[in-house]
Amino acid sequence: MSLVVVGSVAYDTIETPAGRAERVLGGACTYIALAASYFVPVGIVAVVGDDFAEQDRQLFARRGIDLAGLEHRPGKTFQWEGVYSDDWNRRETRRLELNVFAGFEPCLPEHYRRQPYLVLGNIQPSLQRQVRKQVPEARLVAGDTIETWIRTARNELLEAMREWHVLLVNESEARLLSGERSLRRAAETLLQVGPKAVVIKCGEYGAALFCAGDYFYAPAYPLAEVQDPTGAGDCFAGGFMGYLAEQGCDLVADKVPRRELARAVLYGSVLGSFCCERFGPKRFETLTREEIDRRFRELESYTRF
Amino acid sequence: MSLVVVGSVAYDTIETPAGRAERVLGGACTYIALAASYFVPVGIVAVVGDDFAEQDRQLFARRGIDLAGLEHRPGKTFQWEGVYSDDWNRRETRRLELNVFAGFEPCLPEHYRRQPYLVLGNIQPSLQRQVRKQVPEARLVAGDTIETWIRTARNELLEAMREWHVLLVNESEARLLSGERSLRRAAETLLQVGPKAVVIKCGEYGAALFCAGDYFYAPAYPLAEVQDPTGAGDCFAGGFMGYLAEQGCDLVADKVPRRELARAVLYGSVLGSFCCERFGPKRFETLTREEIDRRFRELESYTRF
Repeated sequence: MSLVVVGSVAYDTIETPAGRAERVLGGACTYIALAASYFVPVGIVAVVGDDFAEQDRQLFARRGIDLAGLEHRPGKTFQWEGVYSDDWNRRETRRLELNVFAGFEPCLPEHYRRQPYLVLGNIQPSLQRQVRKQVPEARLVAGDTIETWIRTARNELLEAMREWHVLLVNESEARLLSGERSLRRAAETLLQVGPKAVVIKCGEYGAALFCAGDYFYAPAYPLAEVQDPTGAGDCFAGGFMGYLAEQGCDLVADKVPRRELARAVLYGSVLGSFCCERFGPKRFETLTREEIDRRFRELESYTRF
Repeated sequence: MSLVVVGSVAYDTIETPAGRAERVLGGACTYIALAASYFVPVGIVAVVGDDFAEQDRQLFARRGIDLAGLEHRPGKTFQWEGVYSDDWNRRETRRLELNVFAGFEPCLPEHYRRQPYLVLGNIQPSLQRQVRKQVPEARLVAGDTIETWIRTARNELLEAMREWHVLLVNESEARLLSGERSLRRAAETLLQVGPKAVVIKCGEYGAALFCAGDYFYAPAYPLAEVQDPTGAGDCFAGGFMGYLAEQGCDLVADKVPRRELARAVLYGSVLGSFCCERFGPKRFETLTREEIDRRFRELESYTRF
């Protein structure tokens, strides 16, 4: 194993203009881990209830994902229900039940603690710090967050960020966290907090990378049809970090590797695009590394002349 | 002269979160012509009232723009007043006075009629057709439109589009005109109407080019600060067509030149970005071709690794 992922594993009910899916496997940890599993062996840290289904355990297992850090607790798994507006522009949370996730105290199995790569999904900043401490020798740590923590746990989040090499946020989070409208200014402000690179995800428009005075932009893959964008941002994170782990990037010892980070952003974009093609994590039941690499080359060609 | 531009010349009053400008020169024709003038000699077709100021005539003249097609009529010039929301995401029209523009009947000077390049700004589709007929030998015609004409003159607009080589629209117009949410699908539908290339402008996210089964995406230039986005889409059109005219592109005789169209999209993005740096067309008082080419190379490097 090489990459540790911490975050939520959930059961989602999702309604989009393209249809509805009931109680499908979801959560940031799920999507990050599935996407990253195409690049390196992945281990997850999360909690599920006694309703966690065998078929979902098998989906992780088929992707070779280590479940030693998946805690089982009495009670129900985290549940979320969301509805996308007719124009896809807004997502409304209809129901959110933390259930067993409420008492989540991540404690990493011994063999997780020596891993070089760590992705901190958007859980409470205090939990992110707790996990970060347990992987002290990590050579590359990336963290994500959500509006809730920016608004309610800002200082703790800033403390957490100081211990990350890469911050992954979407554009509204970048603006809220930095107080800057311009993404360039927002990234400059966030880089001063500590991370060596800031990746700002712009959904269907792609993603921007800011590092060491440099900039890179990758468009999103132009899908003919979207079924469900849930998890696309997390798949971006998984593709991004999976690729960097595969390349053996070391942000502790080495200079910021612009070329590899840029390629990682492109891989993030590719994994995010596959995620949108089916409801929930369904696309990962059949997706192959070959398809990923083919789409990577295609996406790369879209900015070349 | 090489490139003919038809559209509105206006006086705009603009309020953005960065400030306010009263009665500055505006209109699609103004921005397209100024942006294109860095590449080839430009002639404009528009109408102004007797309030048209000498300093504005001089701005055009300094950029070498032919004003033989600028009709002067008794009355006031077209006026527009718009306000951008605090988050920059919405623009509200506070006042719109067509004035002399209401009776605009574009009649091109003789020497305009033999020009190879034509940009049809977003005026009524019937007027666009009238102008198109007067430049029968054009080797590349690009047209823009707005929501108003898509809603009120749809059939006339589709007729007009059949006579264009390139359609330039923003993403909401592309969706409205095609009935498709996916930009890829929208472009496929619009390409079937007649144009050989469709460029979809996505504002601060960049622009996408669809042509001959191929795709190209150029990000927007990441500005640290925006003063006023008014005219950026028109400057995109001007930079795009100016570059293609400079290269002598011929979409009547030749195959669709993907490489040149892609570079043109990048130039469009660059010109749009300069436009946003100052209120109204102020940036064009000092902008040089050298600055444009430098930013082109910079923007190109942002998608390379």
